[in-house]
Amino acid sequence: MNKVRRVERIVALTKILVDMPGRLFSLGYFSELFGAAKSTLSEDMAAIKAAMQQFGLGTLETVAGAAGGVRFVPVRAERAVNCLLQDLAARLAEPERIIPGGFLYMTDILFNPALMVQVGEIFRRQLGRLEPDYIMTVETKGIPPALMTARAFDLPLVIVRQGSKVTEGPAVSINYVTGSSKRIQTMSLPRRAIQAGAKVLVIDDFMKAGGTARGMNDLAREVGVEVVGTGVLVATAEPAEKLVQDYFALLILHSVDQYAKTIDIRPAL
Amino acid sequence: MNKVRRVERIVALTKILVDMPGRLFSLGYFSELFGAAKSTLSEDMAAIKAAMQQFGLGTLETVAGAAGGVRFVPVRAERAVNCLLQDLAARLAEPERIIPGGFLYMTDILFNPALMVQVGEIFRRQLGRLEPDYIMTVETKGIPPALMTARAFDLPLVIVRQGSKVTEGPAVSINYVTGSSKRIQTMSLPRRAIQAGAKVLVIDDFMKAGGTARGMNDLAREVGVEVVGTGVLVATAEPAEKLVQDYFALLILHSVDQYAKTIDIRPAL
Repeated sequence: MNKVRRVERIVALTKILVDMPGRLFSLGYFSELFGAAKSTLSEDMAAIKAAMQQFGLGTLETVAGAAGGVRFVPVRAERAVNCLLQDLAARLAEPERIIPGGFLYMTDILFNPALMVQVGEIFRRQLGRLEPDYIMTVETKGIPPALMTARAFDLPLVIVRQGSKVTEGPAVSINYVTGSSKRIQTMSLPRRAIQAGAKVLVIDDFMKAGGTARGMNDLAREVGVEVVGTGVLVATAEPAEKLVQDYFALLILHSVDQYAKTIDIRPAL
Repeated sequence: MNKVRRVERIVALTKILVDMPGRLFSLGYFSELFGAAKSTLSEDMAAIKAAMQQFGLGTLETVAGAAGGVRFVPVRAERAVNCLLQDLAARLAEPERIIPGGFLYMTDILFNPALMVQVGEIFRRQLGRLEPDYIMTVETKGIPPALMTARAFDLPLVIVRQGSKVTEGPAVSINYVTGSSKRIQTMSLPRRAIQAGAKVLVIDDFMKAGGTARGMNDLAREVGVEVVGTGVLVATAEPAEKLVQDYFALLILHSVDQYAKTIDIRPAL
């Protein structure tokens, strides 16, 4: 193809890299796409990286060697992270979110894609060092934050189902006791969903006593995979002792007073 | 802040616009962020738009007037759409996906974020003219394609639940009959999830007889919203008569032969 002007190449490079966070692209791929020398592309990458860092939009990571290349890592500036968490806390503290029983209506926030993209990138930023092979969650409301975390890592998401579904083939099931209401539930994972020996990061929307997260830990052990960490969007301050250790929460829910109509929720970072 | 060099500004502009497809950004916002004149930014936008169109990566749309600005529209080139659908069809035709009973295991594809981002953009491309206010789906496997479609439109996603959940407040429920197995099920939508009078686009992973999609239509009518269209990732060729009219499918499943271990699935576009 014809030679491409530098600015057009840089726009297309930025778009392609940003579109698939964590995905490694070889310089050879771009060299063919743009008809440009690898040295030219390396200069382009340096300019893209500098611009992203200047504006706190993430960074580029270069992997050397034959299987190497470049990838976009969506690590937002601390200022942007704090801003988002303050904004989420303010929205979740709106009194009309209180549902009889002292529950908090969070569904609109959880199913807002633009917010969950950012939440996923924060989990990537804070938990990336755990180097998981899969992200895992349980249906239903954990799916959006977990899917967007999987996107930020460029990893597959594994869904634990409530009960057992005939359309997913042979599955491993466990019973678990919900931490707060002490009910016995079943959760299951299709055999083919995950490779034994893999490392998984559990992401969920809400943690009270931690019974569900504990259930996912037990189920993971049953299928021969290791849970390397647990991230939740909101954890309650009470009970302070959860059924899982070492979880990471973005927001802490201190209290919901359904009579005074007040909610105390604050960023944990 | 200091003046920003053109190439850095263009990288940051591209990243910010691409990150939130469909979101309208005012030139004033960028003018402040970069310390650049609006005329300069208009030139930058023209360069970004030209580069994106050249590589079939989408386009920029300018909205004139005081409330105007610019937004990224993720309309991929036809070639890229065909490529993705061919790839999905090939993966879904792998014989080991057949589950006793003639079901097709699709969960790994559905929960692959990079694939679903692209599926969402195809639904945006093909159904954008319907101008919905919300995307709607039913838990569980419809969530990833629907969430990524909502992302491509910059719209909220509304989740219809199986049964009725106490943590979501007052809800409207209906009973519906699944089209293929003729079982009676309940689905519900929290009252506060959607504004009456809104236009919704239903997105789901799979349609056989269309009973679930029909149920969502009935539920939508019950809460006073209008279904302007239905998009599914996979529809079966049989029955040819579905319980909803005017649905749009990306792939057509012609047959699953569990004894011969063959699957016939093809792009519908």
